[in-house]
Amino acid sequence: MAMGKGNSKAKSGIPLKSNFNEWYPFIVEAAELIDKRYPIKGMDVWRPYGWKTMRLIDSHTHSEMERTGHGECNFPLLIPEDLLEKENRLVSLLKRAREKGVDPEELRDEEDEAGFKKEVYWVKHAGENELDIPMFLRPTSETAMYTMFPLWIRSHADLPLKIYQTVNTFRYETKQTRSFIRVREIHFFEAHTAHVDEAAATKQIEEDLEIVDHLMQKFALPVIISKRPIWDTFPGAWYTIAIDVVMPNGRTLQVASVHHYRDQWAKAFDITYENREGSQSYVHQTTYGMSERLLGAIIGMHGDDSGLVLPPSVSPYQIVLIPIVSKDNAEVVNNAIKKISERLKKIGLRTYIDGRNIRPGQKYFDWEIKGVPLRLDFGARDLASNSIMCSPRTGDKVSINLDELEKEVEMKLEAIHELMNINAMNRLNEVILKLPELINQDGIWKLSKPLDEDKIYWTSFEGNDSDAETIEKLTGLSFLGDSLDKLPEEVECCISKKKTNRKVYLAKTY
Amino acid sequence: MAMGKGNSKAKSGIPLKSNFNEWYPFIVEAAELIDKRYPIKGMDVWRPYGWKTMRLIDSHTHSEMERTGHGECNFPLLIPEDLLEKENRLVSLLKRAREKGVDPEELRDEEDEAGFKKEVYWVKHAGENELDIPMFLRPTSETAMYTMFPLWIRSHADLPLKIYQTVNTFRYETKQTRSFIRVREIHFFEAHTAHVDEAAATKQIEEDLEIVDHLMQKFALPVIISKRPIWDTFPGAWYTIAIDVVMPNGRTLQVASVHHYRDQWAKAFDITYENREGSQSYVHQTTYGMSERLLGAIIGMHGDDSGLVLPPSVSPYQIVLIPIVSKDNAEVVNNAIKKISERLKKIGLRTYIDGRNIRPGQKYFDWEIKGVPLRLDFGARDLASNSIMCSPRTGDKVSINLDELEKEVEMKLEAIHELMNINAMNRLNEVILKLPELINQDGIWKLSKPLDEDKIYWTSFEGNDSDAETIEKLTGLSFLGDSLDKLPEEVECCISKKKTNRKVYLAKTY
Repeated sequence: MAMGKGNSKAKSGIPLKSNFNEWYPFIVEAAELIDKRYPIKGMDVWRPYGWKTMRLIDSHTHSEMERTGHGECNFPLLIPEDLLEKENRLVSLLKRAREKGVDPEELRDEEDEAGFKKEVYWVKHAGENELDIPMFLRPTSETAMYTMFPLWIRSHADLPLKIYQTVNTFRYETKQTRSFIRVREIHFFEAHTAHVDEAAATKQIEEDLEIVDHLMQKFALPVIISKRPIWDTFPGAWYTIAIDVVMPNGRTLQVASVHHYRDQWAKAFDITYENREGSQSYVHQTTYGMSERLLGAIIGMHGDDSGLVLPPSVSPYQIVLIPIVSKDNAEVVNNAIKKISERLKKIGLRTYIDGRNIRPGQKYFDWEIKGVPLRLDFGARDLASNSIMCSPRTGDKVSINLDELEKEVEMKLEAIHELMNINAMNRLNEVILKLPELINQDGIWKLSKPLDEDKIYWTSFEGNDSDAETIEKLTGLSFLGDSLDKLPEEVECCISKKKTNRKVYLAKTY
Repeated sequence: MAMGKGNSKAKSGIPLKSNFNEWYPFIVEAAELIDKRYPIKGMDVWRPYGWKTMRLIDSHTHSEMERTGHGECNFPLLIPEDLLEKENRLVSLLKRAREKGVDPEELRDEEDEAGFKKEVYWVKHAGENELDIPMFLRPTSETAMYTMFPLWIRSHADLPLKIYQTVNTFRYETKQTRSFIRVREIHFFEAHTAHVDEAAATKQIEEDLEIVDHLMQKFALPVIISKRPIWDTFPGAWYTIAIDVVMPNGRTLQVASVHHYRDQWAKAFDITYENREGSQSYVHQTTYGMSERLLGAIIGMHGDDSGLVLPPSVSPYQIVLIPIVSKDNAEVVNNAIKKISERLKKIGLRTYIDGRNIRPGQKYFDWEIKGVPLRLDFGARDLASNSIMCSPRTGDKVSINLDELEKEVEMKLEAIHELMNINAMNRLNEVILKLPELINQDGIWKLSKPLDEDKIYWTSFEGNDSDAETIEKLTGLSFLGDSLDKLPEEVECCISKKKTNRKVYLAKTY
């Protein structure tokens, strides 16, 4: 579809998808997902079409949370500064321990520095008063939640504790903001769990990855799952597993992350329980986070030159019905199309009849931008032939018999989802290449051939931090982390030449 | 149920409902709706049971919004101070005009004073920076929304614009806080509409009152609907209709309010449209607000000495199933009860099997506190007789035949709802009394007999502000406002003796 830089817009005025960095910001407003004209940068207004899509995405998450026995909470937005001290001390301690390569316990009495403080919005005034203790808007809720956990956890019978919430969180973002991808008020999902021991927490991580798998299938989003390198792991975590989507410009977008905390937070917040032997133990904790980036990923992965393409699972309307009327048949056509819509609603589908008094062509254009999976056009001729014209957003128009309406529409929606899935999988497979060989010429590392733009790479790796730095500098890419799937057999590390079955991903990231 | 002040707790340790001011704060935590131990006063943690109940309340509101064609938005939490200036000028202008009894237009150029500024939380710092323009946490969203309305409204074809959102809002509350009733972070619903003219906006008010009626039926909450007196109307509004519930201590709790704004806000925010004649007109606006107070009202209205009593429409579990097992029949009883639960889930009911390894009596106690409408106990004897023991939270235990399970349970839930409705209606009717006659003795007003505690009063009224003040001082009650139902025929005003069919309510308010 790329048509060269001189011609980066379709006739409709929509930037071409191949010109992703223009297409994306244009389409999120053209499809009326959000309005960026609110007077604070990075804080957009969710319009009804965008909010409904987001809430449908959330609904799948909530179903998975119900299935796995998580309880939905809602914690206060504001966190008193003095609670943050505990978190800061912990994070700073672990960071320094990691840098020095020593056990955190050895450093526990050292002085610490502020961590999160630089990234939060502060509330220091209320009405005309200055507050005794400043508060900040949550960037995430570890601090708020783990203040309460000791009150709820007494004995092993209270474990596991599994809770989640979907709330607005805030980051004082200084980088360039992008709708859904990098914003200052974030529509955020976070699950927090506490367990009797490390093994039980590890099991939770496995459950989280199963949930991720179910959700990404629902959204037709193939993902790269990797264990983040140590230097890119949240300092409060023992390890972090990140879930990345590859956007059309070849940048990876982290859409979910799962952290194993072991008992580090429990020690900072004094979260203990009486174990079966009657003595006190620290709990082991995990968290699992996602955000409105899921919507950003769906837009980026599936959209095309005509606009969004939404998976039926998250589209506010799965089917839009367009009456094709003339003056003398308007009533009979409109009545018939209402009945068709009712039949589809009855089997649980979300339908919308576009009865606006404008040309059908304009309606087609609007609903294509909005990415509705299935359009049904119905006029007098269809009425006579007991059929309806069915245009999937993914192509291949066909007339279907009204006697078979429900079955045919359900099959079409499934086929659309399946096709979106296959297309996305194919794109992901095309975009992941093996890193060209690294060659050392007179002590200087070089690539055996230049890298492609817009691609991500994998390689075998068993080197140290300095090796990683060399590779990052040479390629201009960042380490995403270790694939959870090891290589089928040991090969040489691309740089240290040590034998290894570790497979690492390298990419430009958002 | 009142047992005198010396004996204000039931054997279970729960304060008696008759001792409402102790019962209420106890029960909201004992039922695990919220946890008040979060370290900011008036900002509580919603626990899963409370949040689920609130979200079910919200779901009924959302259905009504869908039915009436409102779109769900989500606006940013933060509002820049400079936007507030418009609102402050407007509110202050209208307030002064009202005080002086003049047309607001005459005062438009006068200086104004800060209005909301004293009641909001301020964000003046982010990270280590002081912000150029301070921002505040929304107390409501007029300012945020009406900044965007001019961008969305161009012509009469864009009207009516009907949107709503369910969000967290903030008030720097200096009065004593009470869970769900007076809090600092408020779970808030607000609908905002714009119309071509005053009459169209008035029709919206009618629709809002119809929605209120549907919702209050769902929650079994009989209400008092009144037009607030002018001195208690939000200064930005032309008039305000308030919906109050009477709590067991005789205090009224405003659970919803509807404002007709006419074109005052449109003038402040310059919201105009091109009318059918091709010239520019100001829109006329309305708002409709509700909050977590609905949950407070449901708790207060329906609870009893054993705990909450939740209407089936909002109870997280409509039915709790208790297996009555012994060592040798546990498996067969548990399997049978699972099947019974599945049958009820299949017809859309929310069920929960309490399989905890504790005495049934303890389970009964827990679910009574939590107010689950229907308890089903099932043991070996029931298995043998193909029946199940059915205990409505509202009393009258009965065994039902398992062949009739679905039908019987649905009927029972309906009967529970109906009974709650009737009981609440009866209480409301009992609590509203006619105000005793006012007698003027030597220029001093007296009541012909003393007022009852815990009651609210109505009277005929056609007086001025000073008459109203006299009545409020004499009774210790506040004017709720004018009933929307006029008296069937004209009578003398209780104080001015003018002929009137205006019926006003007086009450102690929350």
